[in-house]
Amino acid sequence: MAGIRYISARLAQQIDDELMGVAGAFSLDQLMELAGLACAQALAKVYTKEKHPRVLVCCGPGNQGGDGLVAARHLGMFGYKPTIYMPKPGSKEHYRRLQIQCNNMNIPTLPPSNDVASLASAIKSSDVILDALFGFSFRPPVRAPFDAALPLLARSGLPIVSVDIPSGWDVEAGDIGVEGALNPQVLVSLTAPKQGVKTFSGRHFLGGRFVPKLLEEKHALNLPLYPGTEQIVELPSQESEQKL
Amino acid sequence: MAGIRYISARLAQQIDDELMGVAGAFSLDQLMELAGLACAQALAKVYTKEKHPRVLVCCGPGNQGGDGLVAARHLGMFGYKPTIYMPKPGSKEHYRRLQIQCNNMNIPTLPPSNDVASLASAIKSSDVILDALFGFSFRPPVRAPFDAALPLLARSGLPIVSVDIPSGWDVEAGDIGVEGALNPQVLVSLTAPKQGVKTFSGRHFLGGRFVPKLLEEKHALNLPLYPGTEQIVELPSQESEQKL
Repeated sequence: MAGIRYISARLAQQIDDELMGVAGAFSLDQLMELAGLACAQALAKVYTKEKHPRVLVCCGPGNQGGDGLVAARHLGMFGYKPTIYMPKPGSKEHYRRLQIQCNNMNIPTLPPSNDVASLASAIKSSDVILDALFGFSFRPPVRAPFDAALPLLARSGLPIVSVDIPSGWDVEAGDIGVEGALNPQVLVSLTAPKQGVKTFSGRHFLGGRFVPKLLEEKHALNLPLYPGTEQIVELPSQESEQKL
Repeated sequence: MAGIRYISARLAQQIDDELMGVAGAFSLDQLMELAGLACAQALAKVYTKEKHPRVLVCCGPGNQGGDGLVAARHLGMFGYKPTIYMPKPGSKEHYRRLQIQCNNMNIPTLPPSNDVASLASAIKSSDVILDALFGFSFRPPVRAPFDAALPLLARSGLPIVSVDIPSGWDVEAGDIGVEGALNPQVLVSLTAPKQGVKTFSGRHFLGGRFVPKLLEEKHALNLPLYPGTEQIVELPSQESEQKL
């Protein structure tokens, strides 16, 4: 049986387009809700709220930042104490609505600023980082304020859960030595893993339990079976695969 | 400690309005996705896909029918074999999109018709019914084609999981003897239970893990804690409460 397919940035975009196009008929709100829920569940699976209650949720300006905001809200519902780092809030209406939903949950957001002093201070009072900064449409170089933020996060000593692609990595080439690129313990791939994480050796979860069989087969994604009613499935680690 | 509050139809509508208004900032798509997921999870908690794979998902034309369509899709994802009975499809755009999403999952829908022959035949090849026909805005009398469908469902002998209020019951007065009113084994209340189900004695789940604390306190809902990362929580049965 063929293993799961690691997809290109272009195919990731195409699948998103197909899911949200006339044929797929999903709204961004629906997919983002399930994706963010999957991220929150994966973090909770590895880092319990008893030992790692304070989650620093780092959100970029794009759709991955939106996934991060949804995850922050669900983490709040699960009993975690999330704080949002979102130096460049997205401008789209749904992004703004997600921000309001987090505000209504009394989830604090660091003041938006190019100065990373507040981030440095927030890192000191956090137990784990959820990295939803750059998604599959990211292309180097890293621009301000993220160029200053990434090294702080990378050197924080905190465990990191990255969404889709560790921030600073190339979506297809992987870790190409960008200054401050993150080295997460946990990865949550959405819909299908991207080519750049093929050699990722930490705990790897897949989320996005919304891909119809037809679309999965069209693109030969070979997705694994999700267990029970969960929104995530853990992929075998590269180490255990190499042992086989 | 005060128990959970059973709310009126009017307050249920007000809470929905507040969640989706400028202050709450949720979209209908978001809330429906989480509500439908909760319904699917509650059904799966009681009726396993091994013993009860064939779920007849009965959808009304309103928002509860939309919850039903979302639940049908998630049940398909969980490995159940859902079939949709939806004699009067909703006319709103999001409802039509939910239908397409189910079609893309190869979930069959009975032909829309006032004739209940296809329903009678579908009942014979089903293991459990998900009742998402009438929600909290339903007012008797039951109109065609539901006046003929409800008695068929009620006399089917199949276990029934109802959403929010068993179809045929009054949202506030409960089972007032409407012909064909359903008598479900399982109830999934969304957001907060309605006054009409105060004496419901089957297994009772609460879904809708999206109510911010502020809104919960404003309306003194006294919601129970949801376990872990789940989207449902089981409420103590009336029987065990009466024993206390």
